[in-house]
Amino acid sequence: TAPPAEQPQQQPTPAPKQLTLQARAELTTNTIAKRVFAIMHAKQSNLCVAVDHTDPRAVLAICDAIGPMVCMIKTHVDILSDFPSTFGPDLIAIAEKHNFLIFEDRKFADIGNTTKMQFQGGVYRIASWAHITNAHALPGDGVVDGLRQASLSSGVPSHGLLLLAEMSSAGNLCSKDYVQGTVSMAQRHTDFVIGYVSQSKVDRNPTMLHCTPGVGLAAGGDALGQQYVTPRDAVCVRGADVIIVGRAVVGSCADPVAARDNAKVFQQAGWEAYLETLQQ
Amino acid sequence: TAPPAEQPQQQPTPAPKQLTLQARAELTTNTIAKRVFAIMHAKQSNLCVAVDHTDPRAVLAICDAIGPMVCMIKTHVDILSDFPSTFGPDLIAIAEKHNFLIFEDRKFADIGNTTKMQFQGGVYRIASWAHITNAHALPGDGVVDGLRQASLSSGVPSHGLLLLAEMSSAGNLCSKDYVQGTVSMAQRHTDFVIGYVSQSKVDRNPTMLHCTPGVGLAAGGDALGQQYVTPRDAVCVRGADVIIVGRAVVGSCADPVAARDNAKVFQQAGWEAYLETLQQ
Repeated sequence: TAPPAEQPQQQPTPAPKQLTLQARAELTTNTIAKRVFAIMHAKQSNLCVAVDHTDPRAVLAICDAIGPMVCMIKTHVDILSDFPSTFGPDLIAIAEKHNFLIFEDRKFADIGNTTKMQFQGGVYRIASWAHITNAHALPGDGVVDGLRQASLSSGVPSHGLLLLAEMSSAGNLCSKDYVQGTVSMAQRHTDFVIGYVSQSKVDRNPTMLHCTPGVGLAAGGDALGQQYVTPRDAVCVRGADVIIVGRAVVGSCADPVAARDNAKVFQQAGWEAYLETLQQ
Repeated sequence: TAPPAEQPQQQPTPAPKQLTLQARAELTTNTIAKRVFAIMHAKQSNLCVAVDHTDPRAVLAICDAIGPMVCMIKTHVDILSDFPSTFGPDLIAIAEKHNFLIFEDRKFADIGNTTKMQFQGGVYRIASWAHITNAHALPGDGVVDGLRQASLSSGVPSHGLLLLAEMSSAGNLCSKDYVQGTVSMAQRHTDFVIGYVSQSKVDRNPTMLHCTPGVGLAAGGDALGQQYVTPRDAVCVRGADVIIVGRAVVGSCADPVAARDNAKVFQQAGWEAYLETLQQ
């Protein structure tokens, strides 16, 4: 018998050249991921704004005001004081008018049988109006399988799922192993998982989107453990593709004009940071 | 100076004698935990039924039918096809009639500022009708602090929080370190945290409640990764105080009479297992 072939010497993988959004849009086969990259390129925006007001009319007014500046709007519909049946259709109309995607930040975290019902049903019927939602990998693959089943039966063309790999809050339990477990799960479900909510680049696959929350204009925190980073830090240092900005854009008063001015600042800061990564 | 005192030799902690529910009710200072132990003792029931139907009227009818057999009812209000404003008050009335507590299985898993709004607000106003809810420790202490703030401002006397230490679903990422991080967090918040959702006894503090989901009459699983254990396994082997039974009681058709018969079987099996632990 032939002697065992010699193992080729392990070379350190070279860091991949930073690809443009256009190149990444072409590379991915996932419909929703393709749309995200294409919108980011067309609008020169990597800004997602978290519109966390409790009045649904104020949320819609703000989305309409900041729509031209964003690639995504992030919602928490379960904090709205009421939920008119027109909310989903109205938000979709605004999203189509301004060409952005809707990301409901539901953080699904239950067994598959339950997440399936939570995504498609309930009062909110999230699968009927959100393009993107997210889940913790904690419950295992069932959480993804349940959400996929709900997506397939929703009648909407397709959804993209983000897995929460790392959190921005103090004392969180996302250990190295936990992050690795999340990335492995994402890699088993690339038909449906389009990327991560993370604080760093956890996956070198260029078709995977990295969205980083907890972005403000200065480093800092709130009284309940949230920790902030700047747009440049998020993009250039941490490797974010999409910066998620909440209170620094929307503030405590639901003023669409102020939100629009703030969104312009973050759109520019985020985009400049993206261009800087292409020079690296 | 005096020589350093000699360290007392480390003795292995003896396993604590299994305390009765009465003794544990006296031991805890937490109002909700005290009520749970007292109800379990008075009704001879360690049964919590997960009533996962999508029709709110069917849920209420089943709760009324199985009320005499349970110490808790577990709900997922975010799968209900509609949410009448009377749902909360109606469920509270049934809970008072049959002396059980309401546990909304929300699995909060966001930063504190968001969980606060999700618990007190939204369409469901969970804090206004649920005695108990649960959260993942993943986001760090802020998740507990946010829920506590919502509880204190809700006007309802008090709430108890269960932390999810272990899950019953296949491939879950609750590692040993993760479980230990969850237990440490619980121990920092015993004014509000009354115990765990777990698959084993993760904390030897006898005031802490261990609730174990995924209980059926035989071991097995579903197509989306859920894994089942028997009542005796849950209580005698895994150390559960409360067994959480879903589909084995409620089934796929919303029949209150069948649910009542099933609940009787699980109440008896669970209680016999509890009595067995006192003999150990």
